[in-house]
Amino acid sequence: MADAEEVSNKQVIFRDYVSGFPKESDMYMTTSTISLKVPEGSKAVVVKNLYLSCDPYMRPRMSYTTDSYIHSFKPGSVISGYGVAKVLDSGHPNFSKGDLVWGFTGWEEYTLITAPESLFKIPNNDVPLSYYIGILGMPGITAYAGFYEICSPKKGEYVYVSAASGAVGQLVGQFAKLIGCYVVGSAGSKEKVDLLKNKFGFDEAFNYKEEQDLVACLKRYFPEGIDIYFENVGGPMLDAVLANMRVQGRIAACGMISQYNLDKPVGVYNLMNIIKKQIKMQGFVAGSYFHLYPKFLEMILPHVKEGKVVYVEDIAEGLESAPQALIGLFSGRNVGKQVVLVARE
Amino acid sequence: MADAEEVSNKQVIFRDYVSGFPKESDMYMTTSTISLKVPEGSKAVVVKNLYLSCDPYMRPRMSYTTDSYIHSFKPGSVISGYGVAKVLDSGHPNFSKGDLVWGFTGWEEYTLITAPESLFKIPNNDVPLSYYIGILGMPGITAYAGFYEICSPKKGEYVYVSAASGAVGQLVGQFAKLIGCYVVGSAGSKEKVDLLKNKFGFDEAFNYKEEQDLVACLKRYFPEGIDIYFENVGGPMLDAVLANMRVQGRIAACGMISQYNLDKPVGVYNLMNIIKKQIKMQGFVAGSYFHLYPKFLEMILPHVKEGKVVYVEDIAEGLESAPQALIGLFSGRNVGKQVVLVARE
Repeated sequence: MADAEEVSNKQVIFRDYVSGFPKESDMYMTTSTISLKVPEGSKAVVVKNLYLSCDPYMRPRMSYTTDSYIHSFKPGSVISGYGVAKVLDSGHPNFSKGDLVWGFTGWEEYTLITAPESLFKIPNNDVPLSYYIGILGMPGITAYAGFYEICSPKKGEYVYVSAASGAVGQLVGQFAKLIGCYVVGSAGSKEKVDLLKNKFGFDEAFNYKEEQDLVACLKRYFPEGIDIYFENVGGPMLDAVLANMRVQGRIAACGMISQYNLDKPVGVYNLMNIIKKQIKMQGFVAGSYFHLYPKFLEMILPHVKEGKVVYVEDIAEGLESAPQALIGLFSGRNVGKQVVLVARE
Repeated sequence: MADAEEVSNKQVIFRDYVSGFPKESDMYMTTSTISLKVPEGSKAVVVKNLYLSCDPYMRPRMSYTTDSYIHSFKPGSVISGYGVAKVLDSGHPNFSKGDLVWGFTGWEEYTLITAPESLFKIPNNDVPLSYYIGILGMPGITAYAGFYEICSPKKGEYVYVSAASGAVGQLVGQFAKLIGCYVVGSAGSKEKVDLLKNKFGFDEAFNYKEEQDLVACLKRYFPEGIDIYFENVGGPMLDAVLANMRVQGRIAACGMISQYNLDKPVGVYNLMNIIKKQIKMQGFVAGSYFHLYPKFLEMILPHVKEGKVVYVEDIAEGLESAPQALIGLFSGRNVGKQVVLVARE
């Protein structure tokens, strides 16, 4: 092997399993080396990472678990997650040097991806590359599958979205408006509430941190009750929603970020409403809907190009900023989709 | 009106709204009079009640509620519920004197039913009449809709049924065996557990009252996890099931009898599994599936006549025994479907 082709590679390493609230020090930076050529005969690709995605589902991966749809991070190893990257060398017939791709990669400058079949090629168009870890990537498919496939929305229905300014929530709200629903979102700051109302076109929005009684609060915003709840937070908010659902309501359970840092989750008490109101509550993960990606792109791209669907990102500059950016998700520091810019194309 | 056609009518009256565990004294017997002729020009029917049904959903009706799919009982008025009855006089073109019907009626000897459109006529066949408030009535449709429509069962799947010897559970278990599932049931006594294994053909059964750790117990019976849970009890059992569900599992939420007599429901903590395992949990009520009744009868009647599906009833004799029979549901005193025999045809 040609040592001359090895370059230094900054990496974000996962230190050890976390309980409670994660800290920046649960990750550390290191520098190793990597060959920019794929091993002889392998079907791998070597990529240069451009954008990395910080997503709430990464928190459960920081704890030891064997029963989830995704593996825990490995202590002492590089963090993995969604990213946008450029192919530097390819042993795989589907990919060529220079291709832009999105998919699972490492939190490092360069990554050897040994099973590149799961990567998506990014077509040559004029949308920002970072969108492929947001509106045009996993969060986009998540919003699309959860709202359209699980909730079967109808014009005029009452829709509530929690964590509504986040990577997924901001899209759900805009999808709901596209088909003529009434949509209310909640978030954790005045700035976010303003975004919901003024940028994303939610009919109403509120700061959940200012509400003492969530059941009464939702009753104010939904005097007729909620047909569709897009669940991103769990815990007491889910309980309050259950008490406000309408008959034959639907809950797409996408995430429960309020519970991820607790040693023991909080209890939910209002589940009898699931029977009384004939509610469907369905959990889902984007990975089960990737087959819909072409259909989703066909639907979303015209809206994005015409500015009918907008997307707000919170971009942290530099791989070194990645740990802080990830941790920030759990205190709601990010405004919009949290992205880490590693390198420009 | 001809007073001569009035007869005395024993009735079970609902005393007042209940909190906590209901008692026999929450109901009382009285005797009024009723005309056995329908009022001139009305489309009502007058029926003689033969069998009355005791069902768990009647407990929430004993509390004051405005947000359920069914009204509370009215203090000072006769209890209402499903029954099998004989038409004595009819102003409705669909019904004639002598017809046997099942549907909503009163807990009394005779009832004037003013909206008889919702009654089902009982065909002339050789199954016991009481079956029309059990296996061939609302509990039958409940088991059928919940299992086939909501859970979409497949051969070889792992099915768990709580309150498994009850009016609905015993059928769900037999349906699961019919299509080749592995099915485990739980109940609250040795007698019931024996029934599950020896009469209804469950693969395994256990007495939940003898189990200290429900999570570990279910893990023993389902080392591979649970694909389908037919939920009749709620509370800690639901929590333990959530911890044992398989990916893309389904929960038909039919009832939560463990919660009906509590002032405050107990908390459920393991809802994160709904996302991690991509579980669908769906509440339902039989009333939304009555349109499937003909299809259901077509499926079930041959099985009943051939003895391939069996049904165990617990029959209390006499209208006076009705309050005790109803209360007994909530301590699990009944073995099988609780029926009250008011009069023989």
